[in-house]
Amino acid sequence: MLMIKRLSLEDSKILVEGAKAKAEEIGVPMCIAVCDESGHLISFERMDGGKITSSIIAQDKAYTAAGAKRTTESYGTASQPGQPAYGINSAIGGRLMVVAGGVPVVVDGEVVGAIGISSGTPAQDHECAQAGVDRFLATL
Amino acid sequence: MLMIKRLSLEDSKILVEGAKAKAEEIGVPMCIAVCDESGHLISFERMDGGKITSSIIAQDKAYTAAGAKRTTESYGTASQPGQPAYGINSAIGGRLMVVAGGVPVVVDGEVVGAIGISSGTPAQDHECAQAGVDRFLATL
Amino acid sequence: MLMIKRLSLEDSKILVEGAKAKAEEIGVPMCIAVCDESGHLISFERMDGGKITSSIIAQDKAYTAAGAKRTTESYGTASQPGQPAYGINSAIGGRLMVVAGGVPVVVDGEVVGAIGISSGTPAQDHECAQAGVDRFLATL
Amino acid sequence: MLMIKRLSLEDSKILVEGAKAKAEEIGVPMCIAVCDESGHLISFERMDGGKITSSIIAQDKAYTAAGAKRTTESYGTASQPGQPAYGINSAIGGRLMVVAGGVPVVVDGEVVGAIGISSGTPAQDHECAQAGVDRFLATL
Repeated sequence: MLMIKRLSLEDSKILVEGAKAKAEEIGVPMCIAVCDESGHLISFERMDGGKITSSIIAQDKAYTAAGAKRTTESYGTASQPGQPAYGINSAIGGRLMVVAGGVPVVVDGEVVGAIGISSGTPAQDHECAQAGVDRFLATL
Repeated sequence: MLMIKRLSLEDSKILVEGAKAKAEEIGVPMCIAVCDESGHLISFERMDGGKITSSIIAQDKAYTAAGAKRTTESYGTASQPGQPAYGINSAIGGRLMVVAGGVPVVVDGEVVGAIGISSGTPAQDHECAQAGVDRFLATL
Repeated sequence: MLMIKRLSLEDSKILVEGAKAKAEEIGVPMCIAVCDESGHLISFERMDGGKITSSIIAQDKAYTAAGAKRTTESYGTASQPGQPAYGINSAIGGRLMVVAGGVPVVVDGEVVGAIGISSGTPAQDHECAQAGVDRFLATL
Repeated sequence: MLMIKRLSLEDSKILVEGAKAKAEEIGVPMCIAVCDESGHLISFERMDGGKITSSIIAQDKAYTAAGAKRTTESYGTASQPGQPAYGINSAIGGRLMVVAGGVPVVVDGEVVGAIGISSGTPAQDHECAQAGVDRFLATL
């Protein structure tokens, strides 16, 4: 039997709050999703004005970051034309996101969940996702 | 031009809190989704121990209740064998839910959003969804 | 942070072997899937002659049993016309299975994974799934 | 009438074992899928720590290699911008994989099945897939 660490609902809210604070600071209403280490949604918030397509994209960024144990931004680099993971963006019915904004939450070397952000530029999405992770890790 | 009333993120959180209070009272960890009048997710919480299949089902119950402007419970009756909506449960790739737990939020005769709950029995899901709606309507 | 128990690959093989032994005993070549507590596949075997549709159905039975924390057989009863979960079979893109053959693996009151079987009658599928679970629980 | 050669369950396990031995040698826990010449799953193993997204991707790599009778790596080249198969990665609902790690099993000039590997780099995935094929062909 394996023993797995997983974000609780309370943990996930700290991630959401950290991301939301950054989103407010930069003035971009975001969709914010937090999932567990298996990619299943725990918390979600769409700030007023967040994009409706981002309701789904934020969830899929979180799913990808948790499942593949890497940032979606890193997949963006690895999946450019001529790169080894080229074409992986359409995998799993298109759920595998290679646009920045998905960041895994790593505790003691293990992925315990992930956060996915969407509605801004990919750089803004990533910045807010990282802010959520930083806020959470600071509480440990 | 149309003017559309829509739940805000703050409104959606009142709905979530009302549903969660009822879920805690009856001792069932629930997945709770609130969407806008267009069926797009605003808020989601999976209480610790909520079912992972319910992460999706709760969202689809909210989507159905908002989109069809009726409770999913009422669709359960209307879609029985021999009834007019028989077979509608598999519509929209299976997103159209006919199991109780989805309730529209109606303000001044207009649907402004909906709540969808899943993880308990359909009756428990509906009870918690209604508790969320009641909590919100009491604030108006 | 939550701590979650999960079947290992080695555990999953005991489940597969237990199910396969029963399948051989009753002379029905089965598709046998074992997933973790989050519904993600760990092990799969299609015995020679197993049905190709069952390659998918076995996985979805395991997913349903793990995610909903109940046998798919129990969903079959609860989703009959006039029953509370009527129509739930088409949920999650049709992945939610209400045909017998999916059984959760429960250890110390927690679902740690599930087994899904398909190719025989639903009763045979369930019998083989239960045999897999029994074999595994006997090793603890 | 046609006579089709197809991997048996026993054959598929030799492929899995060959791939797993290589995965252990290079220290990467892999998802390993073997399908028949029609793309239908025969065997699957997720080594402890394998990625959950790879549970699906490994199956789709095997499916693609068997169905298209070529390595998924070769599709990666053929689907680059400006190349003839550009855009094929999103075909079949995204199941058609153009990332390395899917290798057909060819016996007497006929494809009898395929292996798909995912969780490492595409090069590592391909290396393990080929090791599985080599192990199997050596037994003939």
